[in-house]
Order: sequence, then structure tokens, then C-alpha cells
Amino acid sequence: MTAEVGFGIIGLGRMGAFHASLLRGPVKGARLVAATVDPGHRQLLLGSGQAPCPLVDDVDALFAMPTVDAVVVVSPASLHHDHIPRAAAAGKAIFAEKPLADSVERAHAVADDVRRSGVPFQIGFQRRFDRGYARARELIAEGAIGKVEMIRALTCDRMPPVEFLRTSGGLFWDLAIHDFDAARFLTGEEVSAVFAVGSIAVEPQLTEFDDIDHGIVTLRFANGALGVAQSSWRAPAGYDIRAEVHGSLGKVVTEVDEKYPTHLYRDGGVSQERHDQFVERFADAYRAELQAFVDALRADRDPSPNLDDALRAVEIADAATRSRREGRWIELA
Amino acid sequence: MTAEVGFGIIGLGRMGAFHASLLRGPVKGARLVAATVDPGHRQLLLGSGQAPCPLVDDVDALFAMPTVDAVVVVSPASLHHDHIPRAAAAGKAIFAEKPLADSVERAHAVADDVRRSGVPFQIGFQRRFDRGYARARELIAEGAIGKVEMIRALTCDRMPPVEFLRTSGGLFWDLAIHDFDAARFLTGEEVSAVFAVGSIAVEPQLTEFDDIDHGIVTLRFANGALGVAQSSWRAPAGYDIRAEVHGSLGKVVTEVDEKYPTHLYRDGGVSQERHDQFVERFADAYRAELQAFVDALRADRDPSPNLDDALRAVEIADAATRSRREGRWIELA
Amino acid sequence: MTAEVGFGIIGLGRMGAFHASLLRGPVKGARLVAATVDPGHRQLLLGSGQAPCPLVDDVDALFAMPTVDAVVVVSPASLHHDHIPRAAAAGKAIFAEKPLADSVERAHAVADDVRRSGVPFQIGFQRRFDRGYARARELIAEGAIGKVEMIRALTCDRMPPVEFLRTSGGLFWDLAIHDFDAARFLTGEEVSAVFAVGSIAVEPQLTEFDDIDHGIVTLRFANGALGVAQSSWRAPAGYDIRAEVHGSLGKVVTEVDEKYPTHLYRDGGVSQERHDQFVERFADAYRAELQAFVDALRADRDPSPNLDDALRAVEIADAATRSRREGRWIELA
Amino acid sequence: MTAEVGFGIIGLGRMGAFHASLLRGPVKGARLVAATVDPGHRQLLLGSGQAPCPLVDDVDALFAMPTVDAVVVVSPASLHHDHIPRAAAAGKAIFAEKPLADSVERAHAVADDVRRSGVPFQIGFQRRFDRGYARARELIAEGAIGKVEMIRALTCDRMPPVEFLRTSGGLFWDLAIHDFDAARFLTGEEVSAVFAVGSIAVEPQLTEFDDIDHGIVTLRFANGALGVAQSSWRAPAGYDIRAEVHGSLGKVVTEVDEKYPTHLYRDGGVSQERHDQFVERFADAYRAELQAFVDALRADRDPSPNLDDALRAVEIADAATRSRREGRWIELA
Repeated sequence: MTAEVGFGIIGLGRMGAFHASLLRGPVKGARLVAATVDPGHRQLLLGSGQAPCPLVDDVDALFAMPTVDAVVVVSPASLHHDHIPRAAAAGKAIFAEKPLADSVERAHAVADDVRRSGVPFQIGFQRRFDRGYARARELIAEGAIGKVEMIRALTCDRMPPVEFLRTSGGLFWDLAIHDFDAARFLTGEEVSAVFAVGSIAVEPQLTEFDDIDHGIVTLRFANGALGVAQSSWRAPAGYDIRAEVHGSLGKVVTEVDEKYPTHLYRDGGVSQERHDQFVERFADAYRAELQAFVDALRADRDPSPNLDDALRAVEIADAATRSRREGRWIELA
Repeated sequence: MTAEVGFGIIGLGRMGAFHASLLRGPVKGARLVAATVDPGHRQLLLGSGQAPCPLVDDVDALFAMPTVDAVVVVSPASLHHDHIPRAAAAGKAIFAEKPLADSVERAHAVADDVRRSGVPFQIGFQRRFDRGYARARELIAEGAIGKVEMIRALTCDRMPPVEFLRTSGGLFWDLAIHDFDAARFLTGEEVSAVFAVGSIAVEPQLTEFDDIDHGIVTLRFANGALGVAQSSWRAPAGYDIRAEVHGSLGKVVTEVDEKYPTHLYRDGGVSQERHDQFVERFADAYRAELQAFVDALRADRDPSPNLDDALRAVEIADAATRSRREGRWIELA
Repeated sequence: MTAEVGFGIIGLGRMGAFHASLLRGPVKGARLVAATVDPGHRQLLLGSGQAPCPLVDDVDALFAMPTVDAVVVVSPASLHHDHIPRAAAAGKAIFAEKPLADSVERAHAVADDVRRSGVPFQIGFQRRFDRGYARARELIAEGAIGKVEMIRALTCDRMPPVEFLRTSGGLFWDLAIHDFDAARFLTGEEVSAVFAVGSIAVEPQLTEFDDIDHGIVTLRFANGALGVAQSSWRAPAGYDIRAEVHGSLGKVVTEVDEKYPTHLYRDGGVSQERHDQFVERFADAYRAELQAFVDALRADRDPSPNLDDALRAVEIADAATRSRREGRWIELA
Repeated sequence: MTAEVGFGIIGLGRMGAFHASLLRGPVKGARLVAATVDPGHRQLLLGSGQAPCPLVDDVDALFAMPTVDAVVVVSPASLHHDHIPRAAAAGKAIFAEKPLADSVERAHAVADDVRRSGVPFQIGFQRRFDRGYARARELIAEGAIGKVEMIRALTCDRMPPVEFLRTSGGLFWDLAIHDFDAARFLTGEEVSAVFAVGSIAVEPQLTEFDDIDHGIVTLRFANGALGVAQSSWRAPAGYDIRAEVHGSLGKVVTEVDEKYPTHLYRDGGVSQERHDQFVERFADAYRAELQAFVDALRADRDPSPNLDDALRAVEIADAATRSRREGRWIELA
């Protein structure tokens, strides 16, 4: 076990600040050293005295710091293909938020660079560290449901601002990508083909960049199993994420996680509150994934989920997007 | 298997009309022949054309009808000690709503008369026929939870009019009596002593006749197990009835029965509706208990729950009432 | 309100016997007059003394009986196109199990014949009478979830014998057809196009007649909404039927109906039992749909779901089957 | 906001080690400085290299360290009346595990000493920091259920070794004390009298020191409300802790917290796993209560729950114990 891992954060926005708070307490064996911040937020942060760590001018300054052993890449998706290879070239271990890059081609180029550099890499699919998903995977891996035959997954979240969506790559790249990874993780099988369809029910402006706010993706797996991933930018009751895997002997269902185990009975019946935000729903998972990354670095083990997982997810997201636009099945290599 | 059983109903009020509707369809092997009705309702019923069967002047007329094989006693509790022995004397099989009579002494006298007559008798503890309670009993009887060690039961219902409560015998005789019977039924054990306490939170007028609207009864069982029955005339979210039995190997919990398996997710979270009325909550159980009575008559078997069950429940209700008033444990014989 | 409705049953097999038991008690205003039975079962039934009513030689004998006002058609699907028009020609009111016929063409011919005859007609989509589905429909119709945007439905049932499946029309005609109707019923919207995919995970023999045991059907609705119906002949934990409708203001979820509200806590955690069979899961719904039919006849109202509902469901089932075989979207007229 | 709070732990046993792990990461603004350890464990810990911090010889050494600003008292209950006043005399802020002392008299003496010293004090009722209990309290305080009328609480845990129980003060001092505090916390009302009863179902040796393994305590509150706390050393399915508060407008129920939101459907139905240990069930609450203590110290606020809460709980536990032994109501001052 080596000493504490020094961390730099690339992109101290909302999610970056959340990662910073994890690195400054809950995550053991880590130390937050410095962060880059969008110029627009820089003065704000410094003026408020709320900066969680020293701020540096740019990523190069961060990469040059010898006390930075690892970086968390939380910059916009469109900058990943720039930041990740440079971090690798600087010899920093990399924890990157999804997606790996904003196109399949760039994602492969990024992956090649990282592989060549030999630095440890982990992609931020935090559901793998959620106790619901993780326990479901364990049960399936133990054979509790026999042979996997069918999966269904659902993700409903509140819609971000249209301006964010404009550069996010679309519903499948931004939201459904978590279910694509979960489908692989839970079943232990590869997706071999997808057929996707979408609609706009929430935000007509999405037509401007050919995006959708409701999507249904049918999945074929290499072992012959079938699946469906449904996603929508509509969640009036809060974050709604469920997954179920059906097998020859049974099924495992990950239900909506209760915000509180507290039920209120009144005139109209019984009611329960729901999680509002993914950061709240997956707070434990975000901590656990960073902890796993730190533990892997300190034990000199390969982190997971890895580059292949990162690549596979963008390939599925890309195939789903093309399938929807072309109205046909897209096979995956 | 004999022919259809001809039924007379004593007391065609709200519950009597409900029993009538069961005897005229859902209950197989039964035929509704006639009913007595409170003089006040008689003209109303006849005028409306809604009478479910011929109405007779009084119970003697009903007892005199040779086509009446059995009676359902749904008259006020204060008349049970009169109606039940006379039905027995007339040789009619008897299905009586609880309580057996309005005092322990009268209940014993009624039981003696019925026993002497030899007519079949069943008391209306419908929870024994509810699929939740019945399944819990089966599991316990099969040994699924090992040796019974503790029970807790809860009944919350909406408060009836004070005028009804004035003659009902009080919270323990009218409401908690179902939990007293359920405690014996579920555990298969006898209650040996009770300690009761009560309060008034809903209706100050209850002090006029020394009644309460919230009660807690601690139970000791002959095998050493402990229990609690909680009851209240407060149920803003609808009928709330639960029971759980704890044993050496596990516990069985009968949850609130969902009115619909339908959950509504909206702004404030998720909500579910609840049963409003006991007739609605136990609709199946009411049908099943009458069916069991008819089946027993036709098969020449002793119906159950029987006179002993009817007696035991009023003894517990009486002991609980005395315990509350005297502030001490009351032992049961 | 007319007198009791006399019923004849066409096809006293397992489901026919179940309908017979409903008509002989729980359903009010109905009288079971006679039934036809498959010659192979005839001697068996007569010999056992278990026949619930007089048996007649063939459907013509049944149609000739003046005391038969209505028929329940429970014969094999392949005979519906023969039995239903002849019943209509005989002036009998018709309650038919799904599907209306075993091809879209025959279904239209049957519908034309029934329409010309003017006899009342109801198709057996019993889920519309299930309290879970019915309540969900009410909530949606009341606007509780706003504008309907997405639906997802699941049906998992235990696989019937292959010999039955060989003539059933396939997974979409036999099982998913209930979800196709439920999708229309719950949303109040028409399905405009389908895309289907299937796999074989349970029974390799299904390849002999180009059938599947797992199917996923993506649905487009006329109002732009999307949906998915998933079905499988695999249900190790018992009958698993759920549906949810997502709207602009919320979602309604019909969960798996609990067999008992009874939970058993033991060493490994908490467990609950599930319904084994659809007859058990939908016992109340089967009674309620027959009651609705009888009530409509006696009140001279049009029964529902009607011929259009029956037709629309087979059209969707047919389109789904073709979509799966041809690998492309099929538009519905 | 002051600098980091330096902590000493008194009693580095199982719970002490758990507190140490919280202070060394998840709890922000705290620093673990040193700990005392039972001589028997000292060599073990040092030999294993697993000591989370420097170990000191005795509490005096700890109290003498100027870098120790606060102590966590996790020594055996029988030593609290010695350790807490000495910590107060040394000017250390005190976080003490319950109970405050092992008798009411000693508890008052401890409280007097702490009050005189003026050091900040918090008692370890971690349920107040559990999201289920905390949310229930919020809802009640907001008036969501109107006026509080009745409470019921249940705690079932696995039995510790008899040797531990021998010095723990008994079921009411050791286990039910959490429900006594929860009853005050949830309702915002004071307990005015108790009536208790107990039984032995698990461990006959408990008779040696007049203890029980199942207990039922009826509570009267100052506002006239009633309550029940049931506790047992039997939990075959894992930790079972629930509480519900009934009011004039509704009720709030804190259900068993799901270990995972993961349900496994197999042959026998559906099953879920449960929490095994209180440390696991209340992991978040233990962290949150220490965080609250640290935050209060750094903001110079009074920590809560405070000395009065600590005193009140032992008074109720003592009254319940006497009530059980004397078979009568015990009034609380």
C-alpha cells in the first residue's frame, strides 16, 4: 500500500465540486491538491473563499505538479479527447467522467493514447458501485437467476437546460449510456446489436439538433438474450432508475431506491418522497467509485470499469443514435 | 352434501344487507329466504322496492318458517342474548356477528343454551378468513417461525357515530375484540392475562360512558409469550390493520392490504390509496366465512370459529375493560 | 332490468369450467343452462358426476335452446371464426375469449357477421376489469399524469405445453395480446406502428413453427407517445404482470399484485409468495368482466370491450408477428 | 469556524474502532489524535499494526494531551460515571455513548459535573441522525400528522453474549433505551409514566441477573398520548427497527430500512435481504451524529441530543425496569 494519492480536478464545476468534497473527507487515502476551473467561475470561487483547494491556471499547470498523482476529468465531454491524452502523457492516473469522448472515433484515439501511456484509467460509471446494482450483479454472477435471458432498464431524470443538451451528444450519449453500461455489467454479456426509436414530448427545441427526450432502445446480446433500455427527460416525481434481469431460474429487480424509509399516511392514502437529483440518489456510489479507484492505485491493481467499458458504452450510444436516425438495426462489432 | 341451505337474516341493517347480498350470489349452496328488519326501516325498504328478500314481522315469524334452516344474527349486540337462544330453541343453525352477548355472564348463558340445543354455531370473526391472516396462520402452524414468542397487532378504523358507541360495549368490545381473536387464532395460544390502558384523543363525549378511543392492551399467553394489541378510532388514511407474530426462527407480518396494486408518482413522490371501510377491506373474508359456514352445514361438520372462540373473545374484552378501569392486571381463567 | 340471462358455454375445458363456476354463483343475474364439451372429455365429465350443467351434443343443439340467451365462447381459437358467426346468426349475445379469430382476415369476417346480426358482443380482455389496471385507467382518464408520453408493460407467465402453443398463433397472439389491449385501454390512444423482436430461451421446439418465447414489441401511438411490451414464457416466481404509463405530470405504475399481504422474515431476509396462475391472479377480474356483460345485457347497453377492441388487438398481434419475421416497422391502418 | 477538532477515544473496542474509522475520513473537521485501549487488547492491536492512532496508557494520559480537544467515551457503561466527569474536569468536549451512567443516581451526578464544567456534551442516540427517523421527526414537527396521539416502536436485534448482558443494565437500559429516546424525539413530548412487562424466550441464563429478552413497555405522555415500545433479543432475519407516530391528521411510519433495493424472484416468491448489524444499519447515522458534534463544536453551538436527553432516557429505562419488577405503573418526575 503506497502513500496517499494526490488528486487534481480538471473542471471545478458542479460535478467537480462534488468530487472535490469526496476527496476531502469520505474517500480514504486521497488528498486533493489542486483544480482547474472555468475562467468564468474562477473569480467567483476565489472571491467567495469557497474554493476547496488551490486553483491553477490551466491543465498544463496541473499536469506539471509533481504532487498530483491522479486527475479527475470532469471537463465538458467535448474536451475529453484533449484532456485525457494529455493527462496520460503527463503520467497521471486518470479517473474520467463519461463519455470517454464525444465521438466513437475520438474515443478510440483517446483509448489508444491511454493504453500506450500505461497509466491507470477508470471511467465514471457510478451505478456499478451503487449497492442496488452491485448486489444485483453479485446475485447474477453467483447464478441466482440461472442463465440470463432478458433485461429491462429504465432511467427517467429531470431535463437539464437545452444549452447543455445541445453539446451533450444527445439522450443516448448523455443519459441512456448509463443503462448501456449497466446492461453489460449486470448481465456479463456483450451487446451485439441495437434498434432505437425516440420521440419529443418535453422540449420542441430538441429538433434543432436532432435530439429526443424519450427513447427506447432494443438490445440484442451475444448470448441471444434480449433487452430494452428506456430513457426520458421527464421525472416529475424525482429520479426514477430501475433495472431488472430475467433468467432461467428467476429475476433480479433493482427497484427505485427510497429516499427515506418513511411513509406518510394521510387523507389520500400513503405517500413517500423520492430522490430529486442523481448526485443525491448516487451519493454513496460516487464515493465508492472514487474509493475503488484510490484503492486500486494504492494496491497497484487495474481499476475497473476500464477503457474497454468506456469504449463499449460509447459504441452502443453511437449505434443507438444511428439506429434511431436510420430506422434500422445497427450491429456492433 | 345436502341441498341448499335456506337462510333468514335477523336485522336487515347495513351489515345485514351486506350479508344478504352475499347469500344471493357469491355464497354457493345458500338461499336467502326471509329477513326481519327494524320497524323504522321496514316501510323504507318496502317502499323503495330494494328489499333483497321477503320481510317478516319479527324473529318468531322467521323461526316459524320451515324453509329457514339457518339464521344470520346481525341485530344489535344488546339483543344477541335474546335472539341467539331463541334461534337455537327453534332448531336453526346460527351464524352470529360478534360479540356473542353484551356481558360475559350473558355470553355464558347464551353459550349454554346453544350447546344444549345442539345446533351448529359460528361466530363472525371474519379476519380468520382473510387471505393475509389465514396465510399467516398457515405459515405459523407449519412451523415457519418456530416457537411463538411475541405478537403485535394494530387496528385503526374510522370512528362510528357516538350514539352507536354508547351501546357497543366500548373500544375493546367493539374493535379490539377482532385483535383478541386474531391473537388466539394466529398464535394458537390462549391469553392468560391482560393489562390495558386507554385515552381519549378524538371524541370527548366518550367520557360520558367511560369509553376511550385509543387503547393499548398488553397480553400474556399461556406459553409465556407476550403481545400487544393497539386500537384506535382514528384512521385518516383509511382502514389500517396489521398483525405480526414473532417466533424463534422468524416472524410473519400481515401488512396493510393495498386497495389497488397501483402507485401514482407525481410531484411530491409516490402515493397509494387505502381501503376506506372494513366491509371493503374484508369483502372477500366476509364471503369466505359465510361460505365456510354453509359448507360445514352441508357436510355435517362443526363450523369454526365456534362458541368457545366467541366466549374467549368476550372474556378478553371484558378483562381488558376492567384492567383499564382498575389499572391492574386481570387474569383469565 | 330484464330477467336472468340464460347462458350456454361453448367448450367446457379448463377455462370453460372456470366460467361455469362463475356463472353458477358469483355472477348475479345469470343462469347457466347448458354447455358443449369436447367429445374426449364428455364421458369423463358425465362419469364423474362433476358436470356443472347439462351437456349438449354440439353447438347447434346449444343454439337451438330458447333458454340460452347468451353464449360464452371458450372453444379453441381456431374454431372462433366458425362458432361466433353461428352464435350471432342464432341471435345469441356473445362473450368470446380472445383472440376474435386466428387471422386478421377471419377476424374481420367474424366482426362483419356479428355487426350485421346486431347481437351484443364482448371480448374477454379481463385485465380491463382488474382493480389495478382499472384504477390506473381511471387515474389517467382523470388527468392525474397529464398527457400520456410513454408506456411500458411486462407479462411473464409459465409456458403452456408446446402442443397448445403450436396452434395458439404464437407469443404475440396468445400472450402479448393482453398488453396490446392494455396499452390501448390504459393510454386511451391508438397504436399506429410496431417493431418487434423475439428470441427462444426456453423451448427449442418453437422453431418448428417459427414461434418465440421472449418478445419485445416497441409501440408508436397516434399521439406520438412511445411504448414497449415485453413478454416471456418464463415465470419461475409465478405470474409477473406489470404496466406503467408515464405522462407529463407523473406516472402510474401497476405493480405485481401480492398473492397475500403476508411477509415472512427468516434467516435469509424477507420473502413473499406470488400468484401461480392467471386464473388465480385475475379471479376477481374474470368475475367482474362476466358481471359487466350480464349487467349490460340486462340494461340493454352495449358491452365493452367490444368488436373494435377485439379487432384492434389482433391487428397489433399480427403486425408484431410480421414485424418480427420481416425485421421492420409495420404500420397499422 | 475554528480549526480541526482533535479527538481522543476512550475505549478502542469494537465500537471504538468504528468511531475511529469515522474520525479518520468521513467526518469533516475532525482529527483522531489518540486512544486508550483495554490492556487485554493493547498488545494485540500494537502487534497487528492495525492501531488507527497512537495508543496511550490510560485516560489521564489522554486528558493531559493538549491536542485532544474532545473525547468519544465508548468505555463500558459501568465506567461512564468515572470517565465522563474526569473528561469534563480536563476541559474536553464530550461525545458519550449511551447510557449516561449505569444508575439514575450516578447519571444525575455525572450530569451535574458536566454542567458545572461547562464543556460541550452530546449523547450517542444515533437514531436521531438516521434519515428515516430524522425525516419522520421533520414531518411531525411540520404538522403533517396534526396532534400526536399514539406511538409504537419496535426494536429486534440479535442477542449479544450473556456476559455482556450481565453488566449492561438489562434489556431496557441497553436496547429499549433507543426507543425511549426515539419516542421523545419523534413526538416532541415527554414520557410521564411507564408500565413494563417482560419474558424470557431466548436465554434462560438471564434469570440469574433478573433480566429478560422480550419486553413491552406502555408509555403515557404528558400531552395524554399513549405509546408502546417493544424490544427483543431475537432477530433471525436481521436488524428490525420500526417506529410509527399516529396523529389527528395521519401517521408517519418508519419502515425497516432495505439493505439493498434489490429483490430476488425465484421459485418460492420474492425475497430481500436485511441488515445484519446495527453498525451496518446505522452506518450513515453514526457518521452524521459525529459530524453534527464536530460542526457544533466548530460553530460554538450546543450539541444535541444533550445532557437532558441523556438523563431522561435513563430515567425511563430505570422506571421501566422497576415497573416490570414491581408490576405497577411508575410515574416519571
